Amino acid sequence: MELIDHHCHPVVLAALERPEFEGLLNEAAGPAAGTSLFDSMLGLAIRRWCAPVLGLAPNADPDEYLHRRRDLGPEASRRLLAEAGLTHLLVDTGIADPRLCDLDQLSGLAGARTYEVLRLETLVESLLAAGTDVVDLPGQVERTLRDTTAVAAKSIAAYRVGLDLPDRKPAEPALVAALSRCRAAGRTRRLADPVVSGWLAWTALEAGLPLQLHTGLGDADLDLHRADPLLLTPFLRATEALGPAVLLLHSYPFQRSAGYLSQVYGHVFCDVGLAVHNTGAFSATVIRELLEVAPFGKVLFSTDAYGLAELFLVGSFLFRRGLALVLGELTAAGELDPADAERITGMITSENARRVYRL
Amino acid sequence: MELIDHHCHPVVLAALERPEFEGLLNEAAGPAAGTSLFDSMLGLAIRRWCAPVLGLAPNADPDEYLHRRRDLGPEASRRLLAEAGLTHLLVDTGIADPRLCDLDQLSGLAGARTYEVLRLETLVESLLAAGTDVVDLPGQVERTLRDTTAVAAKSIAAYRVGLDLPDRKPAEPALVAALSRCRAAGRTRRLADPVVSGWLAWTALEAGLPLQLHTGLGDADLDLHRADPLLLTPFLRATEALGPAVLLLHSYPFQRSAGYLSQVYGHVFCDVGLAVHNTGAFSATVIRELLEVAPFGKVLFSTDAYGLAELFLVGSFLFRRGLALVLGELTAAGELDPADAERITGMITSENARRVYRL
Amino acid sequence: MELIDHHCHPVVLAALERPEFEGLLNEAAGPAAGTSLFDSMLGLAIRRWCAPVLGLAPNADPDEYLHRRRDLGPEASRRLLAEAGLTHLLVDTGIADPRLCDLDQLSGLAGARTYEVLRLETLVESLLAAGTDVVDLPGQVERTLRDTTAVAAKSIAAYRVGLDLPDRKPAEPALVAALSRCRAAGRTRRLADPVVSGWLAWTALEAGLPLQLHTGLGDADLDLHRADPLLLTPFLRATEALGPAVLLLHSYPFQRSAGYLSQVYGHVFCDVGLAVHNTGAFSATVIRELLEVAPFGKVLFSTDAYGLAELFLVGSFLFRRGLALVLGELTAAGELDPADAERITGMITSENARRVYRL
Repeated sequence: MELIDHHCHPVVLAALERPEFEGLLNEAAGPAAGTSLFDSMLGLAIRRWCAPVLGLAPNADPDEYLHRRRDLGPEASRRLLAEAGLTHLLVDTGIADPRLCDLDQLSGLAGARTYEVLRLETLVESLLAAGTDVVDLPGQVERTLRDTTAVAAKSIAAYRVGLDLPDRKPAEPALVAALSRCRAAGRTRRLADPVVSGWLAWTALEAGLPLQLHTGLGDADLDLHRADPLLLTPFLRATEALGPAVLLLHSYPFQRSAGYLSQVYGHVFCDVGLAVHNTGAFSATVIRELLEVAPFGKVLFSTDAYGLAELFLVGSFLFRRGLALVLGELTAAGELDPADAERITGMITSENARRVYRL
Repeated sequence: MELIDHHCHPVVLAALERPEFEGLLNEAAGPAAGTSLFDSMLGLAIRRWCAPVLGLAPNADPDEYLHRRRDLGPEASRRLLAEAGLTHLLVDTGIADPRLCDLDQLSGLAGARTYEVLRLETLVESLLAAGTDVVDLPGQVERTLRDTTAVAAKSIAAYRVGLDLPDRKPAEPALVAALSRCRAAGRTRRLADPVVSGWLAWTALEAGLPLQLHTGLGDADLDLHRADPLLLTPFLRATEALGPAVLLLHSYPFQRSAGYLSQVYGHVFCDVGLAVHNTGAFSATVIRELLEVAPFGKVLFSTDAYGLAELFLVGSFLFRRGLALVLGELTAAGELDPADAERITGMITSENARRVYRL
Repeated sequence: MELIDHHCHPVVLAALERPEFEGLLNEAAGPAAGTSLFDSMLGLAIRRWCAPVLGLAPNADPDEYLHRRRDLGPEASRRLLAEAGLTHLLVDTGIADPRLCDLDQLSGLAGARTYEVLRLETLVESLLAAGTDVVDLPGQVERTLRDTTAVAAKSIAAYRVGLDLPDRKPAEPALVAALSRCRAAGRTRRLADPVVSGWLAWTALEAGLPLQLHTGLGDADLDLHRADPLLLTPFLRATEALGPAVLLLHSYPFQRSAGYLSQVYGHVFCDVGLAVHNTGAFSATVIRELLEVAPFGKVLFSTDAYGLAELFLVGSFLFRRGLALVLGELTAAGELDPADAERITGMITSENARRVYRL
């Protein structure tokens, strides 16, 4: 079965001690004093579903699990990634974490074809770091986006300025002025300017690239109430005619709102990526809530795995199981034909992604 | 059994081709490229529950269903409406869609008594279109609301200005000035002015009319985050002493907030109208969430059906089934006496509406 | 088994007629015309679970229940509180309701040890009422917080100014100016000033006290959209380094957001206090939603009982049952070891509270 993970990241192959592993386990900086992130729905899911893949009993003790993981070395990641059953990975390559493997390594470990997703903020920050004149920058970005082999662009505007992106493209002089201000203030390594974010989002769509947008939960430097996908409404209404898709990632706890946006705007798609592994055994509820009003042709699958191969396995296993559970209950109740259930599964796990990204 | 649909619209009786049918199926302009709105929870519900009423097997193919529907002509709508089992329809007559049938036709098809709900924005837009002097308009609106045979007023402020309605009635000079501005700017066919919306809502309540307010999900020209019923809090607090009820329609995905408002303000009532058919077989969850904190004496039933007789059938069937399921589980667990379950069902399906609208 | 209710209030021991009882039943001023608050999930829970404790059949009629309750006198409250099985009560003593019993009475009735939680707004309002010079007030508050035997401070900023507390401590001159303005305007009995609320929250944490914050649903003078815990994000990010815990109370309908905040900020903890008794038999869903992303080491238990001993019984019974149900389903599905389920139950019902409050 084809399984397209339309948003993920590379993994760390080096041996990890418990604090570093827990630091990658979810979005916290690390566990609070006296607590462990293994004591969470995600922690339980790793103990339950990853331990057997490493040859341990289900629900293995965290220390035993990490000991075994270190003993196996990169083989642990290979086993977990292979077991995830992914066939295509769309990889956000924009996080400069030297611990991460490269795309070829990831492809080999997963036995999957990889595609690049270009992170817009990283592109501009790199150009500024390389000394590009701010006057030349718009043209260079436009050329890069037009010539890229990446299958999509991604924006983390949610982290930097919030999701109230503008309902028209900022003019180039306004962009140049904003970049000049950022450079003068020494704020070019973490661009947080609404004109810059707005211009990038518009420019990616105009270049014909599908645009992935982080929405909903994330890590500690996110203001979650500014990452509500509903804040995108004016931007979505204004960009519908441009053509390329806008893909709302994660969305939790706003997944119902993301589903609604995907219903009323033809170019909007949604997933519950990161929320699936984060909510562990409870994730079927999150998937069901997304499907309440999102048309099945607008829903995609992603793991948003980062750093740990466990997140690929848990994310893909729980999504497939949750979707099968939700559709299976409908089928058992006679609300859905088995053939339609199979067809809808195919749409969500691969066909929608194939269509959106032209894979 | 009495079943009062306290918010709905007329239907289209003409034959519908697939694109036009899908255009009426839910709140999207139409399906996105490569997708069909039949592939949604609503689409599944229509195939499952409406197809047998038209003499087809459950889960019939969409094209087969529409073919049969066209063959039957208006008889299809009659069968669907009759099967819905509705006894009273409160009909919003304020949408000028020439395809819609009139109240007498709707009443005949459904075998139900109809009552008119007066849409406030349409009233003012009609007066302006008829050339009414803005100075005379407040008095004319007040007279119309006082003399109307409509059982309620309805406002779509959510679509026009958002739900942060004022906590005191705008003064008449401010209203006249706002209307003058709208006329001078040529914006009188789709009034979107906070003073106008605020004045209308206050004036309807002062005229003794229950006030229905669209809240939550709607179609593509709505900013859903401005349709959060919690934005109404200052308005609700200020209007509690006036007497007439304020009825929060739909509310999804904010149904828990709507339930809360109905708990703390004596004149506030709520439903999950449109959300029931939109979420199809998942709607029992939405109903249960509304009942978490809403007192049972504050919850009403509506289909918000528009255009398609299918929405009357699906909306009423799923609501009755969902309510029966939720209360039945409580009864089976011993948390509720069967007699109380029956009494609560009666409150929600008809008695609360009878009391609020004095039917 | 140890069961620590980390946020509650005293009860009324006097005989209560039905209107007064319903007035205390939930957050409404009282039932709307033609309705009873017994017709709500909370009302059903009281009839089901409290009636047998008073010697009546389950689901007793409300009038029969209240008759029996009056007949028993304070013995009714004693039975209900004893049946609640609470071992430690952290009591907010800041509501000046002369009907409430004192801590010794509450301790005796419940057979539990009591601890005081100091309500910050009440402290300042008392000092102002006693004629304290505003210039001396900051020092007096600081001394009181440093010397108190209370185990935590509590703020109701959500009710007074909303939850967008400042990301740095307001300077003392700004506080003195704000207090002067309040006194000059005669607004000292219900302080509603953002500088005052912000200064108090920061000062309590600096004094080393855990800070309880009301978030989510409350009574009719709350603007619920200003009580969204996500509005606290800048404050939480800024106070993480101070040390003491910040505890988000209730949170409904924002419990998933509260869980998220407890995941990403090391010093943030959460509960669904008031929402448990308010949602009655549906409360297991609310508990499960909190546990979706909140680490188990960050979740606490409270009843937020106020006035009625019934709320202690219903709150503690439903919470224990809901938690057992949620963890039991995971255990039955093999997602959790029984030993871990027991350990997690212990964390949530007592160990987390012991650690946070140093009991």
